[in-house]
Amino acid sequence: MKAMTPLEELRHSTSHVLATAVLRLFPETKLDIGPPTDSGFYYDFDLEHKFTAEDLEALEAEMKKVIKENQRFERMECSREEAEKIIRDFGQAEYKLGRLADIPEGEAISFYKNGDFIDLCAGTHVNYTKKIKAFKLLSVAGAYHRGDENNKQLQRIYGTAFETKDELEQYLKNLEEARKRDHRKVGREMGLFEISEAVGQGLILWKPAGAVIRQELQDFISEELRKGGYSQVFTPHIGRLGLYRTSGHFPYYQDSQFTPLVDREEMEHLGHEGCSCAELSNKLNEGEADGYLLKPMNCPMHIEIFKSSPHSYRDLPVRLAEFGTVYRWEKSGELNGMTRVRGFTQDDAHIFCTEDQVRDEILSCLDLVKTVFNTLGMKDYRVRVGLRDPDSSKYVGEADKWDKAENALREVAQTLGVPFTEEQGEAAFYGPKIDFVVKDVIGREWQLGTVQVDYNLPERFKIEYTGADNQPHRPVMLHRAPFGSMERFVGVLIEHFGGNFPLWLAPEQVRVLPISEKVNDYANEVVNQLKAAGMRAGLDRHDEKLGAKIRRAELDKVPVMLICGEKEAEAGQVSLRSRVGKDLEGTASVADTVAKLKAEIDAKSLPRA
Amino acid sequence: MKAMTPLEELRHSTSHVLATAVLRLFPETKLDIGPPTDSGFYYDFDLEHKFTAEDLEALEAEMKKVIKENQRFERMECSREEAEKIIRDFGQAEYKLGRLADIPEGEAISFYKNGDFIDLCAGTHVNYTKKIKAFKLLSVAGAYHRGDENNKQLQRIYGTAFETKDELEQYLKNLEEARKRDHRKVGREMGLFEISEAVGQGLILWKPAGAVIRQELQDFISEELRKGGYSQVFTPHIGRLGLYRTSGHFPYYQDSQFTPLVDREEMEHLGHEGCSCAELSNKLNEGEADGYLLKPMNCPMHIEIFKSSPHSYRDLPVRLAEFGTVYRWEKSGELNGMTRVRGFTQDDAHIFCTEDQVRDEILSCLDLVKTVFNTLGMKDYRVRVGLRDPDSSKYVGEADKWDKAENALREVAQTLGVPFTEEQGEAAFYGPKIDFVVKDVIGREWQLGTVQVDYNLPERFKIEYTGADNQPHRPVMLHRAPFGSMERFVGVLIEHFGGNFPLWLAPEQVRVLPISEKVNDYANEVVNQLKAAGMRAGLDRHDEKLGAKIRRAELDKVPVMLICGEKEAEAGQVSLRSRVGKDLEGTASVADTVAKLKAEIDAKSLPRA
Repeated sequence: MKAMTPLEELRHSTSHVLATAVLRLFPETKLDIGPPTDSGFYYDFDLEHKFTAEDLEALEAEMKKVIKENQRFERMECSREEAEKIIRDFGQAEYKLGRLADIPEGEAISFYKNGDFIDLCAGTHVNYTKKIKAFKLLSVAGAYHRGDENNKQLQRIYGTAFETKDELEQYLKNLEEARKRDHRKVGREMGLFEISEAVGQGLILWKPAGAVIRQELQDFISEELRKGGYSQVFTPHIGRLGLYRTSGHFPYYQDSQFTPLVDREEMEHLGHEGCSCAELSNKLNEGEADGYLLKPMNCPMHIEIFKSSPHSYRDLPVRLAEFGTVYRWEKSGELNGMTRVRGFTQDDAHIFCTEDQVRDEILSCLDLVKTVFNTLGMKDYRVRVGLRDPDSSKYVGEADKWDKAENALREVAQTLGVPFTEEQGEAAFYGPKIDFVVKDVIGREWQLGTVQVDYNLPERFKIEYTGADNQPHRPVMLHRAPFGSMERFVGVLIEHFGGNFPLWLAPEQVRVLPISEKVNDYANEVVNQLKAAGMRAGLDRHDEKLGAKIRRAELDKVPVMLICGEKEAEAGQVSLRSRVGKDLEGTASVADTVAKLKAEIDAKSLPRA
Repeated sequence: MKAMTPLEELRHSTSHVLATAVLRLFPETKLDIGPPTDSGFYYDFDLEHKFTAEDLEALEAEMKKVIKENQRFERMECSREEAEKIIRDFGQAEYKLGRLADIPEGEAISFYKNGDFIDLCAGTHVNYTKKIKAFKLLSVAGAYHRGDENNKQLQRIYGTAFETKDELEQYLKNLEEARKRDHRKVGREMGLFEISEAVGQGLILWKPAGAVIRQELQDFISEELRKGGYSQVFTPHIGRLGLYRTSGHFPYYQDSQFTPLVDREEMEHLGHEGCSCAELSNKLNEGEADGYLLKPMNCPMHIEIFKSSPHSYRDLPVRLAEFGTVYRWEKSGELNGMTRVRGFTQDDAHIFCTEDQVRDEILSCLDLVKTVFNTLGMKDYRVRVGLRDPDSSKYVGEADKWDKAENALREVAQTLGVPFTEEQGEAAFYGPKIDFVVKDVIGREWQLGTVQVDYNLPERFKIEYTGADNQPHRPVMLHRAPFGSMERFVGVLIEHFGGNFPLWLAPEQVRVLPISEKVNDYANEVVNQLKAAGMRAGLDRHDEKLGAKIRRAELDKVPVMLICGEKEAEAGQVSLRSRVGKDLEGTASVADTVAKLKAEIDAKSLPRA
């Protein structure tokens, strides 16, 4: 067991204090477990009564009493028989006996006691409850016992604790900010995307406004790929099972994929009628029946494209790029808006190169990721270099190739000028990798962007190029995706910008606000000029005061408003007001304003300050 | 039975003459049937010996003898019993008795006799074999008896016949030209696409060169859509079965779709192990189990997007466009390159509008299709207006709405200034439609581009907008796809241009050919200038004579060659040679040449004459 950090200890103790308070106010409660988490703690309770917001307040008040009583946390170890007796005496046989049974023979069995409360617990804890100076209960949610939906659903109370009140306040402020920026909320308000029960959970419908953002991002990366010597390809969304047998995705990773599609013609031959599912499933697994898999990865398709032409060392590197949509089975309970989905489009590419080209290719992949992050104002990021665990046998390929690739990754990571960590055992089984971890404006970290070296698939698919020696050689493959997934990336971007997108990404870039109906025609002409210049422009025709129009544009998060009254109409001018700066930025001719905004779009400037 | 045209009669008679010749040279042959087709005729034979190219020549010679003998085609009718006797006496019981059994009771049973040959045949035929003045046997292929792969495979001899030798020669020339232009052949030579057994039949892998063409076409249409007030959306490639129950695609059109994907979580509940496939299939059909369908159409997804926001009559028309990839199950025997596939990307859009807007919306859809055809030099096309059959009950919706829609379609079709036909009974069950039929340079017709009116899906999905009367109203839906499918369209384009794409579509637009190694650096600089101007440019670095380089560029179908020697290098010039015109088009500065080519690309000019 890993030792707890002081903050984890504090949160762990707060969860025990919560359980103490729950038993005082709801003595019939059956306790399950209450561990610390990355951002606080939780405790799972079984109780007929459903906890309300008022209950949480009452529990907080009771917890404060427990803290004031300054109870000591005492550890005691005992035998399995004694433990069973303690649990029964405390009236918590329901779940705790099962938890006790989980402790392997030979391992210490311990309890922690504070006041009258006692809990089966490996520890560790703070010494006294008074050490808990800043805590908060946050929410209550359903959670299946042992995470298994066949078990009873318990009530999980979430809370957090910090060493100081200031830290807690900052955390709660961030939490509130995160709630306001929640991409599910903002995405719905701005009409960016929809998840429809009819279509299916975890499947994103990109509505027009969201599709604009995605397309702009795709165009941005496509232009970078063109400059970088990539070739675009398109591949289908299903492939025969045999392809994924070769790649190793089937049948071994079946649980994270959708079920196979059976080949209609083959099923006729096999006699569909008499075949039980288990039997059919076995036949598919054993390769005795064939079918298709909704593609979980694009790589096998790109390899097939590489294989379809002969290659000389002079052609390498071959860089194949695709906005490729892949599908993976996630449990419904784990889905979350755009950031955890069942179908997503990778800004994927595979580079086929010689050993000697690996280093330079990684370097330009990393450059591309940096360009993406800098353009989007994600300044605070670090990289993780995932290396193999030298003691593990799960890695394929020869040791010297691994060394070479790991050294190349380490070396180029150092040139990035950002913090980097090396993490042993974090490599993919087929090769080492670099992941980018980005911190957003409210301090949350997101894993975005990856570059991986792969010796395995070239081997499995036996791909080759002809070397300068006229002999066949096996190329190395790099997998890379600067955004990772369009869905996840746009979800994170929504939260990063809180919906206030930079001009080049905003679904509606400019809205023209006529001060009165008299200038509606002029305003319409301005809109046409903006559109002719390729901008996404709208017109507010409502018969309302300017103030109301401005408020609506702000609510709709339109970055630029162009206001025009009779004076402006006569002079062929508009007054520019930006959503963020609020103040008018001055009055200018329509042509100058169009040119100014166009320049801002072309430069992909970040939101106006 | 429809009466035969004179040409059909001629071809039908030629097929009997072929059978006559076959029995003379291979008396043990068992005959099946031999009808005329759109472009000739065939006859199916059962014979152990496999027909060779030499056999076809010998058969042609024998057929000429039969023609010279000027045998008379005599019709004779008889009873079923007499017919059976004739068939047995002629030694053709094997297949002909079955064909006899197909003739319904009460219908006339007839034979046609020429010389010693007699065949069960409804007719009709020419009077004498000498009427056959121009025929040719073309090929032999396997064909299952009655098209059923469980039956024996027969040998089908294809041939054709025309009234005059000139017509036959023109046809054979076109056939040869079609063979040369075959998109499967040209597509492979140019590296445009690949169909890999490992990925699956009917699933297209767009290789880099083909993806360039597809992307250029998509960009072209996207720009037109932007001007036309369309909004882009992205939707997933699978959807819950319930969605397709609502749309009516499941379970009724199951045979033309891939098998459903079962919901993993639901299958756990149902007990996957004990469930027979037939049982599971029933459960899916009855809606007792749920799953996903690989989407056969994009419309239900676009409807879900429309439904996800409230709409006022002021927002209409709402035009949602997507390059949406759909999957349909086609029998493997029916697949053909890119033109008949199992997965294809539609340049799809759905327009949601009021009744009053239908006419104008159809008009602009037709304009778009015309723009596409004109841009690509497809000058020879006609339209088919598919109307309902007033005597049939298969059509949904009210008669007055049908009348209105049919009148709108007829009216706008007349404005097109191209031949149009009205075809009763050719409407979709949900509404009338217009199809575009394009004739290519060698006279073949291709159905490309469609506009359909739909009253059915809005009803089934109960979509609404709020009218000026503040009451809910049902919008009308238009389905339209100017290209139809990207796969099929590009397949047809390859044959239309014979691979000689116009500059804006060519995968490699310009190749720079240095006359000697001395000017390689200069040539490379020219390539960089072309690339900087956004062109796809290559450099021929081979150490070869200019003639060889020109030949290679011509073979690779690169439309423009820029030749430079020492004189050009000194003057900062290049000599332009176009693939089609062959002659040098003169020498000019690099900047002028770049500008000239850029203008040609921007204008989407057709191939240089």
